[in-house]
Amino acid sequence: MDGIDKQAIEQGSEFIPKFDAQGLICAVCTDAQSREVLMVAWMDAEALARTLETGLAHFHSRSRGRLWMKGESSGHVLNVREIRVDCDQDALVLVVEPAGPACHTGARSCFYRVLADGRLTRASS
Amino acid sequence: MDGIDKQAIEQGSEFIPKFDAQGLICAVCTDAQSREVLMVAWMDAEALARTLETGLAHFHSRSRGRLWMKGESSGHVLNVREIRVDCDQDALVLVVEPAGPACHTGARSCFYRVLADGRLTRASS
Repeated sequence: MDGIDKQAIEQGSEFIPKFDAQGLICAVCTDAQSREVLMVAWMDAEALARTLETGLAHFHSRSRGRLWMKGESSGHVLNVREIRVDCDQDALVLVVEPAGPACHTGARSCFYRVLADGRLTRASS
Repeated sequence: MDGIDKQAIEQGSEFIPKFDAQGLICAVCTDAQSREVLMVAWMDAEALARTLETGLAHFHSRSRGRLWMKGESSGHVLNVREIRVDCDQDALVLVVEPAGPACHTGARSCFYRVLADGRLTRASS
Protein backbone atom coordinates (compact mmCIF):
# COMPACT_ATOMS: atom_id res chain seq x y z
CA MET A 1 0.00 0.00 0.00
CA ASP A 2 2.48 2.61 -1.25
CA GLY A 3 4.89 1.83 1.54
CA ILE A 4 2.43 2.87 4.22
CA ASP A 5 1.55 0.13 6.64
CA LYS A 6 -1.90 -1.36 6.01
CA GLN A 7 -2.38 -1.94 9.72
CA ALA A 8 -1.72 1.75 10.44
CA ILE A 9 -4.19 2.84 7.77
CA GLU A 10 -6.94 0.49 8.91
CA GLN A 11 -6.48 0.52 12.67
CA GLY A 12 -4.36 3.55 13.48
CA SER A 13 -5.27 6.98 14.74
CA GLU A 14 -3.38 8.86 12.03
CA PHE A 15 -5.58 10.46 9.37
CA ILE A 16 -4.04 9.63 5.99
CA PRO A 17 -6.79 10.39 3.45
CA LYS A 18 -6.28 8.47 0.24
CA PHE A 19 -7.10 10.75 -2.66
CA ASP A 20 -7.62 9.11 -6.06
CA ALA A 21 -5.67 9.77 -9.26
CA GLN A 22 -7.66 12.99 -9.71
CA GLY A 23 -6.80 14.10 -6.17
CA LEU A 24 -10.32 13.49 -4.91
CA ILE A 25 -11.97 11.57 -2.09
CA CYS A 26 -15.64 10.58 -1.98
CA ALA A 27 -17.72 12.29 0.72
CA VAL A 28 -21.15 10.88 1.60
CA CYS A 29 -23.32 13.36 3.47
CA THR A 30 -25.89 11.93 5.89
CA ASP A 31 -28.52 13.72 7.93
CA ALA A 32 -27.63 13.81 11.63
CA GLN A 33 -31.28 13.34 12.61
CA SER A 34 -32.83 11.00 10.05
CA ARG A 35 -29.53 9.29 9.08
CA GLU A 36 -30.62 9.31 5.43
CA VAL A 37 -28.05 9.88 2.71
CA LEU A 38 -28.50 13.44 1.47
CA MET A 39 -25.85 13.68 -1.23
CA VAL A 40 -22.54 12.35 -2.48
CA ALA A 41 -19.82 14.77 -3.51
CA TRP A 42 -16.07 15.02 -3.92
CA MET A 43 -13.35 16.69 -1.92
CA ASP A 44 -9.82 17.54 -2.81
CA ALA A 45 -7.30 18.44 -0.11
CA GLU A 46 -8.37 22.08 -0.23
CA ALA A 47 -12.07 21.30 0.19
CA LEU A 48 -11.31 18.98 3.09
CA ALA A 49 -9.13 21.62 4.77
CA ARG A 50 -11.81 24.31 4.35
CA THR A 51 -14.46 21.95 5.73
CA LEU A 52 -12.36 21.23 8.80
CA GLU A 53 -11.57 24.94 9.32
CA THR A 54 -15.13 26.23 8.95
CA GLY A 55 -17.38 23.33 9.98
CA LEU A 56 -19.30 23.84 6.74
CA ALA A 57 -19.10 21.28 3.95
CA HIS A 58 -16.91 22.29 1.02
CA PHE A 59 -16.38 20.21 -2.08
CA HIS A 60 -14.50 20.20 -5.35
CA SER A 61 -16.72 20.51 -8.39
CA ARG A 62 -15.54 18.10 -11.06
CA SER A 63 -17.58 19.83 -13.76
CA ARG A 64 -16.59 23.39 -12.82
CA GLY A 65 -13.08 22.46 -11.69
CA ARG A 66 -13.19 24.58 -8.55
CA LEU A 67 -13.79 24.69 -4.82
CA TRP A 68 -17.39 25.28 -3.79
CA MET A 69 -19.11 25.59 -0.47
CA LYS A 70 -22.40 23.72 -0.42
CA GLY A 71 -25.03 26.44 -0.05
CA GLU A 72 -22.82 29.27 -1.30
CA SER A 73 -25.61 30.45 -3.58
CA SER A 74 -28.72 28.83 -2.08
CA GLY A 75 -27.86 29.40 1.57
CA HIS A 76 -28.52 25.71 2.18
CA VAL A 77 -25.24 25.00 3.89
CA LEU A 78 -24.37 21.72 5.57
CA ASN A 79 -23.20 22.07 9.16
CA VAL A 80 -20.78 19.22 9.76
CA ARG A 81 -21.31 17.49 13.10
CA GLU A 82 -19.05 14.51 12.61
CA ILE A 83 -16.70 13.08 10.01
CA ARG A 84 -16.27 9.35 9.75
CA VAL A 85 -13.46 7.65 7.86
CA ASP A 86 -13.56 4.18 6.34
CA CYS A 87 -11.13 1.28 6.73
CA ASP A 88 -8.80 2.16 3.86
CA GLN A 89 -9.32 5.91 4.28
CA ASP A 90 -10.56 6.49 0.74
CA ALA A 91 -14.10 7.56 1.63
CA LEU A 92 -15.65 9.89 4.19
CA VAL A 93 -19.08 10.15 5.77
CA LEU A 94 -20.05 13.69 6.80
CA VAL A 95 -22.82 13.65 9.38
CA VAL A 96 -24.51 16.98 8.84
CA GLU A 97 -27.31 19.28 9.91
CA PRO A 98 -28.61 20.77 6.66
CA ALA A 99 -29.85 24.38 6.61
CA GLY A 100 -32.32 23.48 3.85
CA PRO A 101 -32.88 21.00 1.06
CA ALA A 102 -29.59 19.31 0.19
CA CYS A 103 -30.48 18.86 -3.46
CA HIS A 104 -30.36 21.69 -5.99
CA THR A 105 -33.75 20.44 -7.26
CA GLY A 106 -35.31 21.39 -3.92
CA ALA A 107 -35.57 17.80 -2.69
CA ARG A 108 -34.47 17.08 0.87
CA SER A 109 -32.09 14.44 -0.45
CA CYS A 110 -30.57 14.00 -3.91
CA PHE A 111 -31.67 10.35 -3.73
CA TYR A 112 -35.36 10.97 -4.34
CA ARG A 113 -35.85 8.20 -6.89
CA VAL A 114 -35.95 4.43 -6.60
CA LEU A 115 -34.85 2.07 -9.36
CA ALA A 116 -37.34 -0.75 -9.88
CA ASP A 117 -37.84 -2.94 -12.95
CA GLY A 118 -35.41 -0.77 -14.85
CA ARG A 119 -37.34 2.46 -14.27
CA LEU A 120 -37.08 5.30 -11.79
CA THR A 121 -39.98 6.21 -9.56
CA ARG A 122 -40.27 8.94 -6.98
CA ALA A 123 -39.49 7.59 -3.50
CA SER A 124 -42.27 7.74 -0.95
CA SER A 125 -39.87 8.70 1.83
CA MET B 1 -25.11 17.52 -20.47
CA ASP B 2 -23.71 15.48 -23.37
CA GLY B 3 -26.78 16.14 -25.46
CA ILE B 4 -29.06 14.40 -22.99
CA ASP B 5 -31.74 16.58 -21.55
CA LYS B 6 -30.98 17.69 -17.98
CA GLN B 7 -34.66 17.66 -17.12
CA ALA B 8 -34.97 14.03 -18.24
CA ILE B 9 -31.95 13.03 -16.19
CA GLU B 10 -33.09 14.81 -13.04
CA GLN B 11 -36.83 14.30 -13.18
CA GLY B 12 -37.47 11.48 -15.64
CA SER B 13 -38.17 7.81 -15.13
CA GLU B 14 -35.44 6.62 -17.47
CA PHE B 15 -32.40 5.14 -15.77
CA ILE B 16 -29.31 6.63 -17.44
CA PRO B 17 -26.44 5.89 -15.04
CA LYS B 18 -23.57 8.29 -15.54
CA PHE B 19 -20.33 6.36 -15.30
CA ASP B 20 -17.14 8.38 -14.84
CA ALA B 21 -14.11 8.44 -17.12
CA GLN B 22 -13.04 5.09 -15.66
CA GLY B 23 -16.47 3.62 -16.37
CA LEU B 24 -17.43 3.58 -12.70
CA ILE B 25 -20.29 4.84 -10.56
CA CYS B 26 -20.16 5.32 -6.80
CA ALA B 27 -22.38 2.99 -4.75
CA VAL B 28 -23.08 3.80 -1.10
CA CYS B 29 -24.41 0.82 0.85
CA THR B 30 -26.70 1.54 3.78
CA ASP B 31 -28.23 -0.86 6.29
CA ALA B 32 -31.96 -1.34 5.70
CA GLN B 33 -32.61 -1.49 9.45
CA SER B 34 -30.23 0.96 11.10
CA ARG B 35 -29.82 3.19 8.01
CA GLU B 36 -26.12 3.57 8.79
CA VAL B 37 -23.62 3.73 5.94
CA LEU B 38 -21.89 0.35 5.78
CA MET B 39 -19.46 0.84 2.92
CA VAL B 40 -18.74 2.76 -0.28
CA ALA B 41 -17.69 0.88 -3.39
CA TRP B 42 -17.64 1.18 -7.17
CA MET B 43 -19.65 -0.39 -9.91
CA ASP B 44 -19.03 -0.64 -13.61
CA ALA B 45 -21.84 -1.56 -16.00
CA GLU B 46 -21.14 -5.28 -15.48
CA ALA B 47 -21.28 -5.05 -11.67
CA LEU B 48 -24.51 -3.08 -11.86
CA ALA B 49 -26.06 -5.63 -14.23
CA ARG B 50 -25.03 -8.54 -12.01
CA THR B 51 -26.42 -6.79 -8.94
CA LEU B 52 -29.76 -6.24 -10.67
CA GLU B 53 -29.85 -9.85 -11.90
CA THR B 54 -28.96 -11.53 -8.63
CA GLY B 55 -30.13 -9.13 -5.91
CA LEU B 56 -26.67 -9.43 -4.36
CA ALA B 57 -24.27 -6.48 -4.41
CA HIS B 58 -21.47 -6.78 -6.95
CA PHE B 59 -18.74 -4.22 -7.45
CA HIS B 60 -15.71 -3.49 -9.57
CA SER B 61 -12.46 -3.65 -7.68
CA ARG B 62 -10.27 -0.75 -8.70
CA SER B 63 -7.17 -2.34 -7.15
CA ARG B 64 -7.73 -5.81 -8.58
CA GLY B 65 -9.32 -4.60 -11.81
CA ARG B 66 -12.12 -7.16 -11.76
CA LEU B 67 -15.72 -7.86 -10.86
CA TRP B 68 -16.31 -9.06 -7.32
CA MET B 69 -19.34 -10.07 -5.37
CA LYS B 70 -19.30 -8.67 -1.86
CA GLY B 71 -19.05 -11.74 0.38
CA GLU B 72 -17.68 -14.05 -2.32
CA SER B 73 -14.99 -15.23 0.07
CA SER B 74 -16.37 -14.26 3.49
CA GLY B 75 -19.98 -15.24 2.87
CA HIS B 76 -20.98 -11.78 4.11
CA VAL B 77 -23.11 -10.91 1.11
CA LEU B 78 -25.28 -7.82 0.86
CA ASN B 79 -28.91 -8.52 -0.06
CA VAL B 80 -30.10 -5.49 -1.97
CA ARG B 81 -33.57 -4.35 -0.94
CA GLU B 82 -33.70 -1.05 -2.78
CA ILE B 83 -31.55 1.02 -5.11
CA ARG B 84 -31.83 4.79 -5.05
CA VAL B 85 -30.46 7.08 -7.72
CA ASP B 86 -29.41 10.69 -7.26
CA CYS B 87 -30.41 13.79 -9.20
CA ASP B 88 -27.70 13.64 -11.85
CA GLN B 89 -27.59 9.83 -11.85
CA ASP B 90 -23.90 9.61 -11.00
CA ALA B 91 -24.27 7.97 -7.59
CA LEU B 92 -26.34 5.11 -6.17
CA VAL B 93 -27.51 4.18 -2.69
CA LEU B 94 -27.96 0.46 -2.15
CA VAL B 95 -30.24 -0.24 0.80
CA VAL B 96 -29.10 -3.66 1.95
CA GLU B 97 -29.57 -6.42 4.47
CA PRO B 98 -26.05 -7.60 5.26
CA ALA B 99 -25.40 -11.29 5.97
CA GLY B 100 -22.54 -10.34 8.30
CA PRO B 101 -20.07 -7.57 8.98
CA ALA B 102 -19.77 -5.37 5.91
CA CYS B 103 -16.13 -4.52 6.54
CA HIS B 104 -13.27 -6.92 5.81
CA THR B 105 -11.84 -5.96 9.22
CA GLY B 106 -14.85 -7.57 10.91
CA ALA B 107 -16.50 -4.27 11.78
CA ARG B 108 -20.22 -3.91 11.09
CA SER B 109 -19.51 -0.82 9.00
CA CYS B 110 -16.31 0.29 7.28
CA PHE B 111 -16.85 3.72 8.91
CA TYR B 112 -15.79 2.71 12.42
CA ARG B 113 -13.59 5.74 13.08
CA VAL B 114 -14.34 9.38 13.73
CA LEU B 115 -12.05 12.24 12.75
CA ALA B 116 -11.64 14.74 15.58
CA ASP B 117 -8.87 17.26 16.13
CA GLY B 118 -6.94 15.73 13.26
CA ARG B 119 -6.89 12.23 14.76
CA LEU B 120 -9.01 9.12 14.30
CA THR B 121 -10.79 7.53 17.21
CA ARG B 122 -12.96 4.46 17.34
CA ALA B 123 -16.63 5.38 17.03
CA SER B 124 -18.86 4.52 19.97
CA SER B 125 -21.72 3.52 17.66
